[in-house]
Amino acid sequence: MTDTPPYLELANAGIESMIPVAHRMGVHIVELAPGHVVAEVPLDGNTNHIGSMYAGVLFTVGEILGGALGIATFDPAEFYPTIRDLKIDFRRPAKSTVRATTDLDADTVTQLTKEAATNGKANFVLEAQLTDADGQLVATTLGNYQIRKHGT
Amino acid sequence: MTDTPPYLELANAGIESMIPVAHRMGVHIVELAPGHVVAEVPLDGNTNHIGSMYAGVLFTVGEILGGALGIATFDPAEFYPTIRDLKIDFRRPAKSTVRATTDLDADTVTQLTKEAATNGKANFVLEAQLTDADGQLVATTLGNYQIRKHGT
Repeated sequence: MTDTPPYLELANAGIESMIPVAHRMGVHIVELAPGHVVAEVPLDGNTNHIGSMYAGVLFTVGEILGGALGIATFDPAEFYPTIRDLKIDFRRPAKSTVRATTDLDADTVTQLTKEAATNGKANFVLEAQLTDADGQLVATTLGNYQIRKHGT
Repeated sequence: MTDTPPYLELANAGIESMIPVAHRMGVHIVELAPGHVVAEVPLDGNTNHIGSMYAGVLFTVGEILGGALGIATFDPAEFYPTIRDLKIDFRRPAKSTVRATTDLDADTVTQLTKEAATNGKANFVLEAQLTDADGQLVATTLGNYQIRKHGT
């Protein structure tokens, strides 16, 4: 982990202090940029009654992308992200580290930034793909998030 | 906890051994009967960046009802429950212990039991209500589950 960029260390320290339950699962951000987040979680300690990754852990590694993307994409001094709803579809049992990836295109980011500046809030939709160590799709998530001005 | 019925202690020992990540959150079953499950989870250790219960914990206390109901309703020597998808809607921040409740009516249980005996599997849908210590609705879940014969 000695080559982890400082901004990723900061993001993961943020998870540890702000969402300790996700940190205890081993959820961590591995790529972070405006409009782009990748997170991973290990299988160890996170299994279910059939030895694959527990649904709540898959949910968490998918859901947390929204918060990380919100903070990386919009000014965290002005806005904070919240979640409105999320649907997760389980495709096959996950029996390895799971990687969750999501992206917002640049045009959408520009539009949302304007909307948030004007209205003090903006809704955004994130789709995420969750894959196992072999690159197989294990789950997908579709979440509705909102960024809001602090104090609202 | 000295007045906890033995079947609840057994169910919660099952969570501890089979889904340790849910046990570490403090998720536990408080009512269990064929077609009826109630689970609870404390706020402590389970907060997010705004001090309310983290989404993944709300997901877990709602999701786990399906497994518990599957085991309490169908013969666990013959069948095991799995989850296909789940949508969670967040209604308001949860700032206390959260209680998740779900029910399947007796006719549905009878029909599913026949279907599982005939086909070796049966799909079931569960709606759950998640409430805080004041009885306010904090989230709802809608999940599609399946019970399957062991070995399939």
